[in-house]
Amino acid sequence: MSSLCSSLIDDPLQSSLLDRVTRKRCRVSSMGSGSTNVTLQEHVISRDERADILGKYPGFRGCTIWFTGLSGAGKTTISFALERALNKMGVPCYGLDGDNVRHGLCKNLGFSKMDRSENIRRVAEVAKLFADMGIVTLASFISPFNEDREGARDIHTKEGLNFIEVYVSTPLEVCESRDPKKLYKKARAGEITGFTGIDSAYEPPEKPELVIDTGKETPAESVRRVLEYLRDISIIPDEAIKIYNQPEIRELFANDNERQSLIEQIPAMPRIDIGLVDLQWLQVLSEGWATPLYGFMRERQYLQSLHFGQLLDLKKKVVFAGEHDDGCRDEWVMDSPVNQSIPIVLPITDLQKTSIMEGAKEVASSIALFYNDSPVAVLSEGEVFPHRKEERVARQFGFTDPRHPTIGLILASGEWCLGGDVLERVRYNDGLDEFRKTPTELRKAIEDKGADAAFVFQLRNPIHNGHALLMQDTRQKLLANHRNPVLLLHPLGGWTKDDDVPLGVRIRQHAAVIDAKVLDPDWTILSIFPSPMLYAGPTEVQWHARARIAAGVQTYIVGRDPAGIQHPDTKDFLYEPTHGAKAHKMIFFDESRKEDFDFISGTRMRTLARTGQLPPDGFLVPAAWQILADYYKSLNST
Amino acid sequence: MSSLCSSLIDDPLQSSLLDRVTRKRCRVSSMGSGSTNVTLQEHVISRDERADILGKYPGFRGCTIWFTGLSGAGKTTISFALERALNKMGVPCYGLDGDNVRHGLCKNLGFSKMDRSENIRRVAEVAKLFADMGIVTLASFISPFNEDREGARDIHTKEGLNFIEVYVSTPLEVCESRDPKKLYKKARAGEITGFTGIDSAYEPPEKPELVIDTGKETPAESVRRVLEYLRDISIIPDEAIKIYNQPEIRELFANDNERQSLIEQIPAMPRIDIGLVDLQWLQVLSEGWATPLYGFMRERQYLQSLHFGQLLDLKKKVVFAGEHDDGCRDEWVMDSPVNQSIPIVLPITDLQKTSIMEGAKEVASSIALFYNDSPVAVLSEGEVFPHRKEERVARQFGFTDPRHPTIGLILASGEWCLGGDVLERVRYNDGLDEFRKTPTELRKAIEDKGADAAFVFQLRNPIHNGHALLMQDTRQKLLANHRNPVLLLHPLGGWTKDDDVPLGVRIRQHAAVIDAKVLDPDWTILSIFPSPMLYAGPTEVQWHARARIAAGVQTYIVGRDPAGIQHPDTKDFLYEPTHGAKAHKMIFFDESRKEDFDFISGTRMRTLARTGQLPPDGFLVPAAWQILADYYKSLNST
Repeated sequence: MSSLCSSLIDDPLQSSLLDRVTRKRCRVSSMGSGSTNVTLQEHVISRDERADILGKYPGFRGCTIWFTGLSGAGKTTISFALERALNKMGVPCYGLDGDNVRHGLCKNLGFSKMDRSENIRRVAEVAKLFADMGIVTLASFISPFNEDREGARDIHTKEGLNFIEVYVSTPLEVCESRDPKKLYKKARAGEITGFTGIDSAYEPPEKPELVIDTGKETPAESVRRVLEYLRDISIIPDEAIKIYNQPEIRELFANDNERQSLIEQIPAMPRIDIGLVDLQWLQVLSEGWATPLYGFMRERQYLQSLHFGQLLDLKKKVVFAGEHDDGCRDEWVMDSPVNQSIPIVLPITDLQKTSIMEGAKEVASSIALFYNDSPVAVLSEGEVFPHRKEERVARQFGFTDPRHPTIGLILASGEWCLGGDVLERVRYNDGLDEFRKTPTELRKAIEDKGADAAFVFQLRNPIHNGHALLMQDTRQKLLANHRNPVLLLHPLGGWTKDDDVPLGVRIRQHAAVIDAKVLDPDWTILSIFPSPMLYAGPTEVQWHARARIAAGVQTYIVGRDPAGIQHPDTKDFLYEPTHGAKAHKMIFFDESRKEDFDFISGTRMRTLARTGQLPPDGFLVPAAWQILADYYKSLNST
Repeated sequence: MSSLCSSLIDDPLQSSLLDRVTRKRCRVSSMGSGSTNVTLQEHVISRDERADILGKYPGFRGCTIWFTGLSGAGKTTISFALERALNKMGVPCYGLDGDNVRHGLCKNLGFSKMDRSENIRRVAEVAKLFADMGIVTLASFISPFNEDREGARDIHTKEGLNFIEVYVSTPLEVCESRDPKKLYKKARAGEITGFTGIDSAYEPPEKPELVIDTGKETPAESVRRVLEYLRDISIIPDEAIKIYNQPEIRELFANDNERQSLIEQIPAMPRIDIGLVDLQWLQVLSEGWATPLYGFMRERQYLQSLHFGQLLDLKKKVVFAGEHDDGCRDEWVMDSPVNQSIPIVLPITDLQKTSIMEGAKEVASSIALFYNDSPVAVLSEGEVFPHRKEERVARQFGFTDPRHPTIGLILASGEWCLGGDVLERVRYNDGLDEFRKTPTELRKAIEDKGADAAFVFQLRNPIHNGHALLMQDTRQKLLANHRNPVLLLHPLGGWTKDDDVPLGVRIRQHAAVIDAKVLDPDWTILSIFPSPMLYAGPTEVQWHARARIAAGVQTYIVGRDPAGIQHPDTKDFLYEPTHGAKAHKMIFFDESRKEDFDFISGTRMRTLARTGQLPPDGFLVPAAWQILADYYKSLNST
């Protein structure tokens, strides 16, 4: 079966998930260190060896950034902000300044020129050791004399370490006007002598690596300039800065200018009419629920999802040796794989495929997606690839029977998939749009409630008091470690099978439960999860949990047979209900509480309502039950 | 569908792969830092914040380990060894000693009592700063005076930092006999004055945290004691030490004592007779190809493999709230998930299940596995769970047709799986055992060839010159960065479908190719990969690559349609041949070389041989071809 044109993985670790996600760790050891007794090595560890276990990015980046300038110039302000930024990026750094040196290492030094020189020398020697360790060392000292600063530089350069002199050039009058510690005042009053700028000279650096005038730029701008300088001399990777500046949620909405020009261009574009389920996926994508996906999956992401259940990268195509690598054009930076157990693709038919092809191979550069005769998105850099529906269904559902509602839909869909980038927010104008909050909006809403934790309840059935009890219980559990856990009551709002309760009814029922304070409005947010239902069991549970992370939720509650369905023949659970819990690390809702509840499945609840019976006492607040009963009466009457 | 007894994931990140493998990183940011401009914070970063991005394990572990003792006592030797051990564990550390201090920070100090005190004081101040950064700081200085050492301790304790005084108590006469730098000699000769132990006092510590006598223990033993002390005071996690002491390959062989007592107990155990394919999997497991699996999968690992394609942990069962957590008894420490795209299970029938049950629920604690009427392994703490063959086949193969050879086998196998721990090495006595090297043996063999890199060629067909050219070409590529890349020629030796060439024939054919120096014996190792064949395409490619990592191989070569097979109806590729490459990060064998080769698939080669034709010139060395031709002749003549 193996043929001449063969492939070669450069380091299977690299290509296997194992390492893609533990690159740095694996440098320590991929499967344990293996040494069962210590082997002596009579030399210190190399900088590279140390760098391997330091910080988020591999590689040695030890250096010293030396801030010099008058008292009050803003050295420490910028240095602290820079320290915070670097730390957030995962770049180990440490600040040396008067505070942690003058009271310790240099406490036996005064402010004579000689003592000042010795002070700077000692600081420089310590900074050198930190830099040698691989730390980005931030030293902020007035260090008024060129000779001393040059000495500090020499101490580093002769050890092959970067020394970056940053002159904070704030003019004396500005510093004196700030005078936080009233030192200038005292100096002017003669209470302090030898004070730099007053009765002691400040020698500006002759060739500083950077000059910062805090009068001309904000500290944030200064920090950004230092970061860019550090990137330019390869102290910090470009990746780090990009991730640092990247929002957490990737929304795919066009900004106003883009939207305007797109609307003008749409008439000239080939058009694909999409169905409701496609529209719902479009919403999922454009609102950032599947961050960092930037559109309907391309084949590369489709295969990663089917074979790894993850997004490993965002490249737009696979690149073969000899080909020009333009597979990396997506600008979003991923620093680790993201769970993506389900594919999000746009199936198209042969006919649709033909309609968007320019010649035999080229796909039109822009394609307009229409729903109900109005444009909902523009898809750019389209890619067409085989859907391979049978293989997809088997891998995604572990089951291939077309009587499964979602499998039926997929097998009936097009033979091809259209991948590409999308834009625009989806609206339904069904009176429920107010409940359709994007991940970004939900993060805001959770923040507005003053939450220090958020938990979500995933459901696609009416709530009863058992659910409510579960949510209250979860909040209690979380209150052990959190001040104010907020509940995201997050009914699934996309396509569901016909006999499920319609979204509108469910939302009114949920609202009634909240009005009745069964769920406290103070800590409950009701919003719609736009995803269509898959009935894919544990595979879908991964998606439901992962998507909620986008909304800033840390705790996920789900039914015992999550996303489950009956087997069309046996009527048993299609997926073993406990598998989700067994495969994942789940803590089960306290089983000892079971006897507190009458076991009523969504199915039984629907039957009760359909047949006009009343539920057991305490099952549901009357107002909320009425909404269900009315709905089913309306069905029967038709 | 959601019912009352519900489950709760504590932090979906925790339970989702996303985070299980990037725990530390996620503390920096799970999806990018999100801050698009720097927010100023007028305080330095907390130790915990720093710790989050430092080293392999989260948590602050800054401290100073102070080695004191006479010159030549072994302070630096132990300190260096400890530094190396900590670094290997992923614990950031830094050594301070005379070398990097006396020439820098303290170069303006002599050896008077006062200067010595100041020297120690400065070192202690610097050590404190390193400890504050989160670094395990190793200071080795004679530091003869209690007062100075107590001063160093105070400097740390008043900052809430651990100070660990290690007294290297080697007696003077031993130190003097070593006298590496001939200092004692000079001191005795009066060429040096104020030398500790000769004409200057050494005050032994009164309450050192540890005492080390290098006369009584080896440096390795000393290091181990320091490590254990650091674990006991929670400076380094127990996990780190366990991984450090853990071999890279997890073999499941019984040691001689165990084996003896097992052989005695076996007659009393319930017995399961296994088939050849099961035996081959037993071999795969016991030799450590599937490290860290410790036996046939339990349900937990089975589900992780089916749903995540990975081993996420080695717990023996899922633990529900309220239950006692004994799910963690396996002592092997996993610090990151391991790719496991295929399940390795032992299917058993209802009848077999009954035969090993003690009562309704309990499985016999030990079960003997027999092959051909002789015991091959003992399985302990057995667990029986449903095989769910249809779901397994769909997820594993993306295809469910029983005409697929492996799928056929699986669907015909038992309804249950028996999980548990296994022992014993498998031998076949078929004249090929010499070629069956375990991962550990292969690592040794690769090392013995003086290799600085190893690449593997996976095949289950005879080699022809095209393959050979590919392997030579790969070696050339690797020679760009390596001194001596060694080839592991690693034919699959487990079960294959009937029309594949038998293992014995292939091995003789491969050996002939090596004898003819088509593959240079100096850089080629021929060994058998014990795994049975699955014909599972890209899913199996993950297994084939991942298993070879156990043998210390970094580069993996595989055919273009790896583990592929024809569709029973269409006769097309069942798996799109390029999918493996598209989903993984693969570099393709230089396509421009294609025209150098006549494309001859394994199938075509077999046809030529079967029909007694000769291959094109240069396709294969005659001796190697003859072996094939003879084999097929023997088939025809029967």
